[in-house]
Amino acid sequence: MIDLLICYDVATSTEGGAKRLRRVAKACTAHGQRVQNSVFEVSVTDVQLLHLRQRLLEVMDADEDTIRIYRLRQPREKFVEAYGKDHYTDFSEPLIL
Amino acid sequence: MIDLLICYDVATSTEGGAKRLRRVAKACTAHGQRVQNSVFEVSVTDVQLLHLRQRLLEVMDADEDTIRIYRLRQPREKFVEAYGKDHYTDFSEPLIL
Repeated sequence: MIDLLICYDVATSTEGGAKRLRRVAKACTAHGQRVQNSVFEVSVTDVQLLHLRQRLLEVMDADEDTIRIYRLRQPREKFVEAYGKDHYTDFSEPLIL
Repeated sequence: MIDLLICYDVATSTEGGAKRLRRVAKACTAHGQRVQNSVFEVSVTDVQLLHLRQRLLEVMDADEDTIRIYRLRQPREKFVEAYGKDHYTDFSEPLIL
């Protein structure tokens, strides 16, 4: 699996922008999770990456928005620090309830 | 040098949030560049990282904001894809004018 960070820059002050963000979020969270309002960590196969990239390019407004896709170092959790109110759950670890 | 991606999640709809984002941007762009409204790519030494992290933690409102710091794979440009309106300039490459 390929670990990716997807950063989507969009003006959510417009109705169209908010709608595009919802669509991007839907496409990304199918393969991972939303770690910030417009930042997503996903794990995909090569084929899933092709489809996801195509979907993101369909949804975005290239004149208004920016998408940046970073290939993350693995294991991901070793290379990230998080501060503040955080919603991250590591679903690849066993859940202890 | 350590290549980092700094993602700052802040509600800029409040005056305080917009001000914090300006301060975070100032601290980050001292070591790199703003690639999206609240996403920064920076290159720092170990010592600079200590100071930058401390500055970010001072500026942020931990009850409202989120900061995520990713260590990027190097060479950075090999592991990032960018789409849409983009403001990135690779200052580590020779500038051809």
